[in-house]
Amino acid sequence: MPKSNGNDCTCRLANEVGQLKVIVNAQSRTLAKLVRQMKEGCKKDEEAKESTLCGLNPCLKCLQPDILYHLGLSTDTTDFPKVFGDVRFVCMGGTPGRMENFAYYVMQEIGLKINAATKLRNISEAGQRFSLFKVGPVLCASHGMGCPSISILLHELIKMMYHAKCKDPVFIRIGTSGGIGVEPGTVIITSEAIDGRLNPAHEILVHGVSVQHASQLDESLADEIKMCHDPCKDTYEAVIGRTLCAHDFYEGQSRLDGAFCEYTPEMKKTYLEQLQSQEVKNIEMESLAFAALTSRANIRGAVVCVAILNRLNGDQIKTPHEVLSKWEKRPQELVARYIRKTLYYNKNDDDSEQPEDETEGAAAGTGAGAGDTQKAPAEEAE
Amino acid sequence: MPKSNGNDCTCRLANEVGQLKVIVNAQSRTLAKLVRQMKEGCKKDEEAKESTLCGLNPCLKCLQPDILYHLGLSTDTTDFPKVFGDVRFVCMGGTPGRMENFAYYVMQEIGLKINAATKLRNISEAGQRFSLFKVGPVLCASHGMGCPSISILLHELIKMMYHAKCKDPVFIRIGTSGGIGVEPGTVIITSEAIDGRLNPAHEILVHGVSVQHASQLDESLADEIKMCHDPCKDTYEAVIGRTLCAHDFYEGQSRLDGAFCEYTPEMKKTYLEQLQSQEVKNIEMESLAFAALTSRANIRGAVVCVAILNRLNGDQIKTPHEVLSKWEKRPQELVARYIRKTLYYNKNDDDSEQPEDETEGAAAGTGAGAGDTQKAPAEEAE
Repeated sequence: MPKSNGNDCTCRLANEVGQLKVIVNAQSRTLAKLVRQMKEGCKKDEEAKESTLCGLNPCLKCLQPDILYHLGLSTDTTDFPKVFGDVRFVCMGGTPGRMENFAYYVMQEIGLKINAATKLRNISEAGQRFSLFKVGPVLCASHGMGCPSISILLHELIKMMYHAKCKDPVFIRIGTSGGIGVEPGTVIITSEAIDGRLNPAHEILVHGVSVQHASQLDESLADEIKMCHDPCKDTYEAVIGRTLCAHDFYEGQSRLDGAFCEYTPEMKKTYLEQLQSQEVKNIEMESLAFAALTSRANIRGAVVCVAILNRLNGDQIKTPHEVLSKWEKRPQELVARYIRKTLYYNKNDDDSEQPEDETEGAAAGTGAGAGDTQKAPAEEAE
Repeated sequence: MPKSNGNDCTCRLANEVGQLKVIVNAQSRTLAKLVRQMKEGCKKDEEAKESTLCGLNPCLKCLQPDILYHLGLSTDTTDFPKVFGDVRFVCMGGTPGRMENFAYYVMQEIGLKINAATKLRNISEAGQRFSLFKVGPVLCASHGMGCPSISILLHELIKMMYHAKCKDPVFIRIGTSGGIGVEPGTVIITSEAIDGRLNPAHEILVHGVSVQHASQLDESLADEIKMCHDPCKDTYEAVIGRTLCAHDFYEGQSRLDGAFCEYTPEMKKTYLEQLQSQEVKNIEMESLAFAALTSRANIRGAVVCVAILNRLNGDQIKTPHEVLSKWEKRPQELVARYIRKTLYYNKNDDDSEQPEDETEGAAAGTGAGAGDTQKAPAEEAE
C-alpha cells in the first residue's frame, strides 16, 4: 500500500510538473510578444496579416455582409479577425455532444482553463444546424452525417478562415467508421479518400454537369498524427490507409440489415474483400467532401476515425455503449496530442508571431474560448 | 370596444366548441373500440396485423435483435408494435428544435394533451444523431441535411414501421428551400423530385455500380395537402411543382456566395432560368432520397417546403429571423391540418379498426406521445 501511494504521488507530481512547464512556456511567449508589441506598435502585425487560403471564390471580398447562414454568423455582427483570427486548428466530428466533449478535453490537454462559473458556448446556436465551440486556437464543430452536410459546414468554415485572416489553419475530422479487416477499436488515419468505385475524387454537379475534385489529404499531417500514437502505451493500434466514403449507411456500404437489400451475402463478401485487397481500411461518409474542399483551399487536412466494428465480420453495431464511448475518444486523444505538440513542443517554433496569438490565450488561463464572440483572447487575459 | 370584445368572445367560444367536438368524436371511437374488444378479445386484432410496406429487405425478419443504431433503438429492448404500432404519420424536418416545436404544435392541433408535469421526450436521444418525438399517431423526426443523412433516418424509420406492423403510414417532409420565381414565403408541395440534371431519380452506388431509383411522390397526397390551404384566409400562396434536390448548398445550387465559385453570374442566371422554364419551383437537399426510399417501400410520401428566398433575386438569406420563423410554420400548418382532417373528418372513416388505434390516444388526453417507449397509448389512457 505505501508503495502504491508513493507511486501515485510521484505520478501526480510528474503530471503537475508537465502542466506547469506548458504554462511557463506559454507565458514566456506572451511576455516576449508583449515586449515586441510595445516596441513595434500593437496593431501592425494584425493589419498586415491576410488569410493563407488559396483558390477561393473571388467574390468573397464583395460580400458585405457575408452571412454564414448555417453557422448563424455574419460579418456585420461579428468581428471575424478579432474573434476567430487566432484559430489554427479546426476539428470536426459527427455529433454536437461529441464535439462539445472534445472541446473540454482539448482545453485541458493544451493547458487552457475557463472561469469555473462559465461554460463553453455553442457559437453557432443561432444557426440551429451545427454546434461550434472555440477553445483558444482550436475550433470544434459538429458536421452531421454525409458529404452534403459536411460540405455546407466546410464552405462556411473556410469563409470564416478567409474573413478572419487565419494563417495556415489545419482541418481535422475525427469520427467513427466501419473497419475493413481491422480489429474494432483501431484508429485509421486516412491516406486517401475514395468513392464507391475506388476513385479518389469527390463529384459534384454544377449546372447539371459533373465536376470531379481530387480528394487527396496531407500525407505529412497524417504521419505527424500517426507519430502521436505510442505503440508501447496505447492499448490500440493506429494505421494509415485508404478510406472509402459512401453516400449511404446501408446499401452504399453493402450492409445486409438496411430496410432494402437487393444483393446476396456472397456479393457483399466479394465487394468487401475487393476493398480489403485495395488497401481500404475503413468506410465512412464524409471524407470525400472533406478532402476535396480542404485541398481546394490549400488547407492541410486529415481524417482520423476509429473503427467501431470489422465489416468483414458483420453489419450491426452490437458493442456496448460504454466500450463505444471509450473507442470514440481514441481519435480525440491522438488529435489532442498532435495539437499540444504543435503548439508547445515544435522545435521550429521561435518568437515569430505565428504561434503566439493562441498561446497567449492558453497562458492566460482565462475565458479564452469561452465562446464570447465579442472578445478576442488578448482582451480576455486576466 | 364592446363590439370587439363580443367578437373575441364569440371567436373563443367557436374555437372551444371545435375542440370539444374533436374530443367527443375521438372518445366515441374509443368507447366503440373498447366495447368491441370486450366482445372479441383484446389481442385478436393486433396479432393479425402486419405492416403494409412492400419491397423491403427479406432478411429483416431474421434480425433478432434489429438495432436501429442511429435512432438508438433496438427490437430487443423496445416492444415496437406496442410503442409504435399506432403510428400513421411520420413527419420529418431538418433541425431537432423545429421538429420538437412541430410535435407540440401537432399535439394541440389534433386535440392531444400531456400531463402538465411532463414533456415530450426525444425517443432517439441515445442515438445522438436524430431527434424523435411521438404524439399519438404522429412521429416527428429531425433528418439533418442532405440525402445521405435523411437516407439513414428513412432506412431506420421504415424498419421501425415494419417491426411495429404499422398500416399505411404516410411520410411527410416539411422544410425550407430556395424558391425559383416564387414569392418568398410561398409553400411548395413537390410533384416530383429531380436531380441537378433534371432526372427524376435518386442515384446510389451499390458495390461500385450506379443504381437509379425513381423519385416519384404521391400525387393524390400532394393534392390533399394542397387542399388544406385556404386561399381566402391564408396570407401566403401554396403551389404544387417540381423540386430540384442538390447535394450541396453552394455550388450545386449555383450560389455565388460559397467558399468556391468557378462560374459567372451570367452562367448562374442561365441555369436558374432553365430550371424555371422546366417548372422547377424550388431547390432543397433531401427530396430525392425521401421520394425514392418511400416509394420503394410503397409508402405515400409528400415534401412540403416553404421558399425562404427567390433565388432569381439573390443567394444570401437576409430575411430577419422572426420572419423566417413565421414562414417555417406554414408547411407545419398545412400538414397539421391534413393530419387533423385525415384523423377526424374523413368521410370514409367508420368503426373499422384502422383509425381507432390512434384516436384512442388522442381522446385519452393523457401521456400518449409523452415518449415513454415502454407504454402503448392504450395503457396510458387515464
